[in-house]
This record gives sequence, structure tokens and C-alpha cells, in this order.
Amino acid sequence: MKARVTVMPKKSVLDPQGVAVRDAIAHHGFPQISMVRIGKVMEIEIDDAGPDAEARLHEICADLLSNPVIEDYVLQIEA
Amino acid sequence: MKARVTVMPKKSVLDPQGVAVRDAIAHHGFPQISMVRIGKVMEIEIDDAGPDAEARLHEICADLLSNPVIEDYVLQIEA
Repeated sequence: MKARVTVMPKKSVLDPQGVAVRDAIAHHGFPQISMVRIGKVMEIEIDDAGPDAEARLHEICADLLSNPVIEDYVLQIEA
Repeated sequence: MKARVTVMPKKSVLDPQGVAVRDAIAHHGFPQISMVRIGKVMEIEIDDAGPDAEARLHEICADLLSNPVIEDYVLQIEA
């Protein structure tokens, strides 16, 4: 089984890394960029996934892979 | 216009951050995880995108947002 976890800063949280990248792109000659937000993506491969694998992945996403105070995660099961 | 850029380490490149996360998940009681690879995702909003916006985004992805020696990027145009 493969899963993909995307962790993004919440909309209400300032993302200074995104602001820095937006400014860098503007200096690179593309000032039409109005916003950049930067998150993490994790590709996970699971051997012998049991019937509770998706529930356990949600638990790991909330406990380990994201900070629920400032980030939201999306878990996609791919195969 | 919105675009999403996903930057992942190439398959041939060691991803020590992914190995550390895999081991942390195993210690968290889920040893079936065989591989984790970690990349970045950038959500970009563009105002007044011209007809060449996608070509310019590809240029920025290769020049600024990824390191083509060790990373691959995927550019998705969302709207």
C-alpha cells in the first residue's frame, strides 16, 4: 500500500518561508505571483497493511507528521 | 491561476529525513512502513497570468524551487 501525506500551514498562520519564496520569484522577474505557501509531502510505503492501516496512518499523521496547532494534513491512499 | 509544485528527492538519492521519519513511525508502533520519502509542496497563486505563465513557472521550478541535480519537480496547474 502506498500513501501520500501533505502537510500545509493553516490558512490563518503566517508562512514566512512562503513569503520569502514569493519575493525571490518576484526578484526573478515574475511579480504576478501573489501568494506562495509551502508545506511538506511524505510518500509512505506500507508492507502487509492490515485492515486498520488507514486509521493508524491518520493517528500517525496527527501525532507525529503534523503539528495540529499550526498545520493541516491530507492523507491520500494511493494503492 | 493556481499552481502546485511538488519537489521530491530523486529515487537514486538517499533521503535521510525520510529514513528518520520511517524509524520514528516504527518506534511509534507501526513497523510495517517500509519507506518514507519527504519532499516539499508549494501552492502558488498568480494574478493576471499571461499566456506564457506555465512556461515561466517551469523555468522558476527548475531555476529556483528545485535542485535538478538531486530533486525532481512536478508542476500542476489547478485553475
